[in-house]
Amino acid sequence: MNPPTANSATPVTDVRVREVGPRDGLQSIARTMPTEAKNRWVAALAASGLRTIEVGSFVPPKLLPQMADAAAVVQAARGLPGLTVAALAPNLRGARDALAAGAQELVIPVSASNEHSLANVRMTTEQAVAEAQAICAWRDSLPAATRPVVGIALSTSFGCSLAGPVSEDRVVGLAAQLAAGGADAVHLADTVGYANPVQVKRLTARVRRELGGKLGAGHFHNTRGQGLANAVAALEAGVTTLDASLAGLGGCPYAPGATGNIVTEDLVFLLESMGLRTGVDLEKLIAARAVIAAALPGEPLYGHLADAGLPKGFVYAAGIA
Amino acid sequence: MNPPTANSATPVTDVRVREVGPRDGLQSIARTMPTEAKNRWVAALAASGLRTIEVGSFVPPKLLPQMADAAAVVQAARGLPGLTVAALAPNLRGARDALAAGAQELVIPVSASNEHSLANVRMTTEQAVAEAQAICAWRDSLPAATRPVVGIALSTSFGCSLAGPVSEDRVVGLAAQLAAGGADAVHLADTVGYANPVQVKRLTARVRRELGGKLGAGHFHNTRGQGLANAVAALEAGVTTLDASLAGLGGCPYAPGATGNIVTEDLVFLLESMGLRTGVDLEKLIAARAVIAAALPGEPLYGHLADAGLPKGFVYAAGIA
Repeated sequence: MNPPTANSATPVTDVRVREVGPRDGLQSIARTMPTEAKNRWVAALAASGLRTIEVGSFVPPKLLPQMADAAAVVQAARGLPGLTVAALAPNLRGARDALAAGAQELVIPVSASNEHSLANVRMTTEQAVAEAQAICAWRDSLPAATRPVVGIALSTSFGCSLAGPVSEDRVVGLAAQLAAGGADAVHLADTVGYANPVQVKRLTARVRRELGGKLGAGHFHNTRGQGLANAVAALEAGVTTLDASLAGLGGCPYAPGATGNIVTEDLVFLLESMGLRTGVDLEKLIAARAVIAAALPGEPLYGHLADAGLPKGFVYAAGIA
Repeated sequence: MNPPTANSATPVTDVRVREVGPRDGLQSIARTMPTEAKNRWVAALAASGLRTIEVGSFVPPKLLPQMADAAAVVQAARGLPGLTVAALAPNLRGARDALAAGAQELVIPVSASNEHSLANVRMTTEQAVAEAQAICAWRDSLPAATRPVVGIALSTSFGCSLAGPVSEDRVVGLAAQLAAGGADAVHLADTVGYANPVQVKRLTARVRRELGGKLGAGHFHNTRGQGLANAVAALEAGVTTLDASLAGLGGCPYAPGATGNIVTEDLVFLLESMGLRTGVDLEKLIAARAVIAAALPGEPLYGHLADAGLPKGFVYAAGIA
């Protein structure tokens, strides 16, 4: 039952699952997880075979005290073999700090909804685009060997709990502008759980036509139970990276009604069942929930697989003939 | 925000949502819901716009005492305008009783897995097929105006928690045999929540090629969180009827590890968001949860929409340009 790819030096994966719990999960929880627990959590996630983890957010500690130790968590994560360490940074200052700490992949949030942009980063969408472009220009000014990957999380791409529907033309236009401005990838984020599979397939395909290989991750929340259906729709439209959060932690503190991300362990199970290799060992992944449970006692942990267990006769995708 | 179709005399629906909670939900709960509460629940479901409800099971009361009042519930449901009243019957005796009570649609369980068949109905799959054919022959012997619709619930079509994987060739063969034997429809049931979207699409398409218009409902459980993704896959393969249970009640008492059905309110929200008309009013549907909460205090009620509410600016499919 072990995935043959999980422990090999160069795992073959059909879908890259980006774990965002230590960033997207913790930002929505008022309590602060001790740095040592974060490090154990990230290490347990990496040990399960996850190869990209968003470990923190480089924002002013007075806004998000839960993220005050982001530099220490990045540094510790860099010691884990084979892991790409990602961090969120809403502006150039945060990007510089993240890189200085050792982050290899930066995630820059830009909200398609101007209302959410103002609430989330206190910039208009236009200002956030300019900031993202400034970050890309700074990245280009660095010695080639030290340049981080810069991805844009295009928030509220599928709707906004402040503004309501968001124009798909606007999302496609912003994605194209950000890619042209130097972003390595544009991630389409359903920040508040408004998306449906028809919309995901249509909009993702449009963005893919504009961006080609710069189409980034699909980032879905499970607010209305539709998260995994949306993830499948994104795959069908050409996405090969999906964000998820162990135990479904998550939510944006500046987006009313936002709740947790899709559940990493349920997503990995779904993908492997569909014959798509993730390189992740589900038993180790489920075991990592214990780190959260111990560090944040009483915090609700979501997900079905941890309760139901694997089906009788389950085989990982790599073992499917 | 009201669906224009919900209250019209002949609602236009793209997808028929078959509510199975009063049967599939209650059979898995040890407590017995009072008949009067069942009647209020069914009435509330029908008032939301659901047009087919599986209201009970005609099995010996010593096996499922929760269903001892099935005849009374069917009779009460027949008084609701525009509703098709469905009931489960595992054998000819139950089918006769269901019809005598007034059921218009019979659901006959046949397990693709022989192990589950023996555990569930104490017959081999072969015996259950013969029983289903006997029911169809009896149905044909009735005056045309009094004949019920006979659908077969082909249980464990996507895997079995007793036997493990189930051969797709076997499922297709059974479906063809049952349709040839007179069944009006064959429903493909993921009784224990083993299915994935690739499998659902592949197997459903195969069955559709064999059965054409006799392809029945997709019946999915959300045991590993994948239920709605499977429902979307079934739609893509040509299914137009989906089973679901209000608040996700459900599970098979004779299938280890089986848990609740996909959640009706989350499914209807997903379908309407996708531009598929259901004829259901979501606010009335969510309000119907209160009947369960009052009649079965402490019983866990699942589903995301009831907590999250409708998105800002949500429009029903009938209102989408």
